[in-house]
Amino acid sequence: MNPRFPRVRPWMTTEQALRYLRQQAIRANEPIHYAYVLDHDWHLLGVVSLRDLFRASPDAVIQDIMEREVVAVREDTDQEEVARLFAEHGFFVIPVVDDANRMKGIVTADDIMAVVQEEATEDIQKLGGSGVLEEPYLQVGVGRLVQKRATWLIVLLLAGTLTASALEYFQDAIDRVTMLSFFVPLIIASGGNAGSQASTLVIRAMALGEVRRRDWWRVFRREILTGLVLGGVLAVIGLLRIVAWEWLMGSYGEYYLLLAATVALSLAAVVLWGSLAGSMLPFLLHRLGIDPATASAPFIATLVDVTGIVVYFTVAALILSGTLL
Amino acid sequence: MNPRFPRVRPWMTTEQALRYLRQQAIRANEPIHYAYVLDHDWHLLGVVSLRDLFRASPDAVIQDIMEREVVAVREDTDQEEVARLFAEHGFFVIPVVDDANRMKGIVTADDIMAVVQEEATEDIQKLGGSGVLEEPYLQVGVGRLVQKRATWLIVLLLAGTLTASALEYFQDAIDRVTMLSFFVPLIIASGGNAGSQASTLVIRAMALGEVRRRDWWRVFRREILTGLVLGGVLAVIGLLRIVAWEWLMGSYGEYYLLLAATVALSLAAVVLWGSLAGSMLPFLLHRLGIDPATASAPFIATLVDVTGIVVYFTVAALILSGTLL
Repeated sequence: MNPRFPRVRPWMTTEQALRYLRQQAIRANEPIHYAYVLDHDWHLLGVVSLRDLFRASPDAVIQDIMEREVVAVREDTDQEEVARLFAEHGFFVIPVVDDANRMKGIVTADDIMAVVQEEATEDIQKLGGSGVLEEPYLQVGVGRLVQKRATWLIVLLLAGTLTASALEYFQDAIDRVTMLSFFVPLIIASGGNAGSQASTLVIRAMALGEVRRRDWWRVFRREILTGLVLGGVLAVIGLLRIVAWEWLMGSYGEYYLLLAATVALSLAAVVLWGSLAGSMLPFLLHRLGIDPATASAPFIATLVDVTGIVVYFTVAALILSGTLL
Repeated sequence: MNPRFPRVRPWMTTEQALRYLRQQAIRANEPIHYAYVLDHDWHLLGVVSLRDLFRASPDAVIQDIMEREVVAVREDTDQEEVARLFAEHGFFVIPVVDDANRMKGIVTADDIMAVVQEEATEDIQKLGGSGVLEEPYLQVGVGRLVQKRATWLIVLLLAGTLTASALEYFQDAIDRVTMLSFFVPLIIASGGNAGSQASTLVIRAMALGEVRRRDWWRVFRREILTGLVLGGVLAVIGLLRIVAWEWLMGSYGEYYLLLAATVALSLAAVVLWGSLAGSMLPFLLHRLGIDPATASAPFIATLVDVTGIVVYFTVAALILSGTLL
């Protein structure tokens, strides 16, 4: 915020205002685009653009030509909210006021543009699963680059060891039916991909203010529907893949249809679960006061990996018990 | 670009210029902030801000007070380049000229702010592995949402079936040593995570113009170093995990150190490979005329999954042959 800004009085004529502004321009640090109309207690009454001043006749009075509906922000207004106002309304400058509508200063579009770029960069870096670099990629030292990436990689590795534990838990099933293990990466990756899509869409929509916390239920319902359809489509493809391989190469033996059903059902369940987890986690994080962008693609994928394994082997136990298992 | 813009002549006095601008303001659609100084053939000679006009004495001549070093863009200048100029220089308006420096119009910061937000959103949506929504998340119909996400999910599923094929290829090893399969998700996820980090960092740096195509070799060297260190760190953690589980629960039998070495070496190799693949793929895509943001986290992860399996079982064959295999 810049605390210096061009101001005029409501009772001035256009000619007086222009002369008054000319004096201010000599002292000001920022180019003049708009002049703010204030009363004696600095309450913001309206705004006139230089264009309006130029257009009006020299003896027109400011309070007759000023725009009274002024979009203003507070000092504590979120920067992304300010950016949204600039982009929506096409402003160059927005006034900053206090609770009593007294003018404190102005923010300009070029300041906010830099903020917008920077915040998008930070979100993208977080969504990619690394820390925020703070400097351009090529300028960050390799030591710092390692540090920014190591933390999340280690957290994800530690979380990922749960996949090993889950598979160890299902060792008997794998021992008996090795081919069950073939489809583990495929199934959990599909859940992770669906989750990554859902979380990035929701996180960006939150950052842009298109989705607010109270919208979680609407998002939930959309993602149930979306997850069911996407899961259904992937299930059919997974089923066809196994049936095709069996017909072409005889890969999976007499119970291949049961195996295909197991993989298909697991795909459907995991994609639905990924969509729901990916879309709801940003709300949960926001609720806990944590930046929703923490729900990065790798984070969601790791989360869905473990549950995906449990889902898959549970479905396998249900469908294959008595035949293969 | 707006083809209407305020203009003055180099030989005018400040007073003449202000009067001339007042006439233009009445016709103009955009607020006046700067006036462009043109000769008779519309060549851009300089620029004066309204502030300069206000500050100068009424009989000062424009060509003496104008700024001659004007930052201008061409009609075909990349929008991200224009955004960079706005953010760097703090401009509100940038003039657009042709090859002969003849003025064609102006672009304003608010137009570009909207473009910047939109392009960041598009990149984020692509990086999350879905198509570009084009409308706010809550406004897109569920059918369209499914469509935007299904394409990539299906592509990734089909690519992911290669992981099933790779595991089928190594069926003998899994049959003999079931516990090898426990670490497959852990190892390939680590490669995918490293790749996701590298690709998003490089893609964003490219979008901001911090990394250009000719920088690929610098990026490559940085990522080799980064990948080696990160891989080393993860290898140590993976090793400790297996040793600890063996000591605590006796999970892996007499050859647990060889198993630990296999997992550690695979982690190191896969993280290095993920970092290199993730950082180089955006350059390759750019070279082929494809948007680098196509190298999304899920895409890189899937790519690294398949190679990760091959690396892991190859390392296993080398280290475990004669003992477990």
